[in-house]
Amino acid sequence: MSHGSGGRQTHDLVQDLLLSRLGNKTLNRMEDSAVISPSPGSRIAMTTDSYVVQPLFFPGGDIGRLSVCGTVNDLATSGAVPQVLSLGLILEEGLEFDTLEEIVDSIARAAEEAGVLIATGDTKVINRGPGDGLYINTAGIGFIEDGIEISSYNGKPGDKVILTGPLGNHEIALMKARGLIPFETDIQSDVAPLNRYVKEVLERGGDISAIKDPTRGGLASALHEICGHSGCNVTIYEEQIPVDRNVKAVCELAGFDPLYLANEGKYIILCKPESSSLILDIFGSAGAVIGEVQERGDGKGELLMETRSGGLRRLGMLETTQLPRIC
Amino acid sequence: MSHGSGGRQTHDLVQDLLLSRLGNKTLNRMEDSAVISPSPGSRIAMTTDSYVVQPLFFPGGDIGRLSVCGTVNDLATSGAVPQVLSLGLILEEGLEFDTLEEIVDSIARAAEEAGVLIATGDTKVINRGPGDGLYINTAGIGFIEDGIEISSYNGKPGDKVILTGPLGNHEIALMKARGLIPFETDIQSDVAPLNRYVKEVLERGGDISAIKDPTRGGLASALHEICGHSGCNVTIYEEQIPVDRNVKAVCELAGFDPLYLANEGKYIILCKPESSSLILDIFGSAGAVIGEVQERGDGKGELLMETRSGGLRRLGMLETTQLPRIC
Repeated sequence: MSHGSGGRQTHDLVQDLLLSRLGNKTLNRMEDSAVISPSPGSRIAMTTDSYVVQPLFFPGGDIGRLSVCGTVNDLATSGAVPQVLSLGLILEEGLEFDTLEEIVDSIARAAEEAGVLIATGDTKVINRGPGDGLYINTAGIGFIEDGIEISSYNGKPGDKVILTGPLGNHEIALMKARGLIPFETDIQSDVAPLNRYVKEVLERGGDISAIKDPTRGGLASALHEICGHSGCNVTIYEEQIPVDRNVKAVCELAGFDPLYLANEGKYIILCKPESSSLILDIFGSAGAVIGEVQERGDGKGELLMETRSGGLRRLGMLETTQLPRIC
Repeated sequence: MSHGSGGRQTHDLVQDLLLSRLGNKTLNRMEDSAVISPSPGSRIAMTTDSYVVQPLFFPGGDIGRLSVCGTVNDLATSGAVPQVLSLGLILEEGLEFDTLEEIVDSIARAAEEAGVLIATGDTKVINRGPGDGLYINTAGIGFIEDGIEISSYNGKPGDKVILTGPLGNHEIALMKARGLIPFETDIQSDVAPLNRYVKEVLERGGDISAIKDPTRGGLASALHEICGHSGCNVTIYEEQIPVDRNVKAVCELAGFDPLYLANEGKYIILCKPESSSLILDIFGSAGAVIGEVQERGDGKGELLMETRSGGLRRLGMLETTQLPRIC
C-alpha cells in the first residue's frame, strides 16, 4: 500500500520501474502535466479507455499491449496520427513486481511499435482483495491534418465496407485463457496497433469516410452504430466476411456468432470504391470488401446481412453479454 | 456485469446516465475519439490521474468532484487553460445506480465550475468483490499561450514562495470520514478547481516561475520536488504557513505533521517578488508568502524550514504512509 502514498516509495517505483522502460524527454521531466507542441493547423483527437481484462496475460497479448493498441486504434479512427498517451496504473496490493515489470515492458514495446510516447502517468494502489492484479487506463492524443474528415457520421451511399482481417480471434483467445473452451485450440488474440496503416492509406491518397474498430460488441454492433450515425443502410455479405477456420470451428462447436465477437486488431473501413484495393493492399491479404453503404430515405440506417443461403437478415447491436472483461 | 459488455446495456447506461449529465457537442457524437481545435500557436498540456479514494463521499467532496479538480489543477500548473477531460469509469458490479448518478452529477458540476468539457469517455465493469464501488480516471488537455513558461524546473533565486491557503483540510476530512479521528470535528476537504485563478493571474501580468499542488505527500514533498527540479534551495518560515485552527488542533492531538498532509484545493506558487501581492489578491485572503528561493551553488536544491523557535530544519519527502487512498 505504501507505494501509492505519494512519498518516497511511490517516487522509487516510478523512477525505477516506469522511467527506465517508458522514459522519454517529456515523461522524464516528471511534471504534473506534459507539454506537447502541435503541428500548425492540425486538430487534436483525444480518446480514453480503461482496461480490466482477465487474465492479465492471454494467448497473443497482455493487458499492457492491449492498453496501448486499444487507445492508439481509437485515435486513428478519426484519421489522427497518435502522438502521446497518458498511463494510469491502478495496482492491487500484493501484485508481484515481476508481473508489473513484464506488463510495463509490454507497454514499452507496443508504444514503440505504434510510434507513440507515454507523456504522463499516475500510479495508485488499491487494497488487496479482488485478485485482479491491476487495471490500466490510457488516454491518448493525436493530430489530424487539414482536409481529413473521417467519422462514423460520414458514411455515404456507394461507399464500400472493408473488414481488414478475420473476426473473433481476440475473444476466443480470452475464452480459452479463462478455461471456457473445453477443447484444444491455439487461437491467438489479434491485438495490434493499426495506426501506421491508416497513415499510409491517407498519405497515398486513399479516400476514407469512416473507420471503426469492432471491439466489444463485435462487427455487427460497430456497423450498427455507423448505420445510426450516418443515417444510411449497410448491407454486408455473409460469405465475404473473413473468419479463420479454427475460429469458425470453435464458434460452431460452442454456439458463438463471430459477428458479435470482440477484436483488437481489426478495422471496419468505409471508403470510396476506387480506394478499396489500396486499403486492402496496405492492410494485408487477410482483409476483404464485405459490403456496401446504401441510401436510406428516412435517415434511420439499418444493418442488413445477405446470408449464405441468399436471405436478408437485419442485425442489431449485441443484446446480451457474451464475455465480460475482455479489454 | 452486462453493463460492461459493449452491447445494448452499455449503450443505454452511457446514453441515459452519462450523456444527460455530461453531454456537449463533442461528447454527444459518441465517436471513438473526440476532435478538438487548438488555438493557433498554443502548446498542449496533458495530464492524467486515477482516483481510488475511500469513502466515495467525504466531508466537503466526493470522488467525482476530486476527479475533475485534481486533473484540472494539474493542467494549470503549467499555465495551461484546461479545455477538455476524458472520463474513464471502472464500476464495481453491484454499485448502486443512485450512487453513480450522484457522482456523475458531481462531475458535471465540477466541470462547469472549472470551465472544462468532458470530451470522451469509457465505462468498464469489474466483478463484485473489493467493495470500493468505483474508480475514476480522468485525463485532460489544456492550451498554453505563447510566452508562458511555468514549470517546476523554473524556480529562480529571489522568487517568493506562496501557499494559496491553509494546509491539511483534505486529508483530515478523509481521516474523519474513515473513523480514524476519535473526536468531533467539522473539517471539510478543500477540493476545488484552481485554474481560473491561474488564468486571471497570467492575464493581469503576474510573473510565475512554478506552480505545484501539494496533494499526496503534502507541502514538504511538493516543495522538495521543486528544489530538486530547479536546483535551488527553498527556505520556508514555519510561523508563516497557514493552517486552520481546527486542523492544527487535530494534528496536535493525533500527532500529524500538516506539512505532509494532502490538499486538493491549494497551490504552491513560486513568483517574482513584485507579483506576490497580485497572486494573494486573486487567490484570496487565506494565502500567504511562506518562503523564498535561494541560490545553490552545486544545483542540489534542498528544502529548509526556519522553525518557530528560530532553528533551521531540513525537510525531505514523505518517507512513510500517512493515509492511503486519499485521492
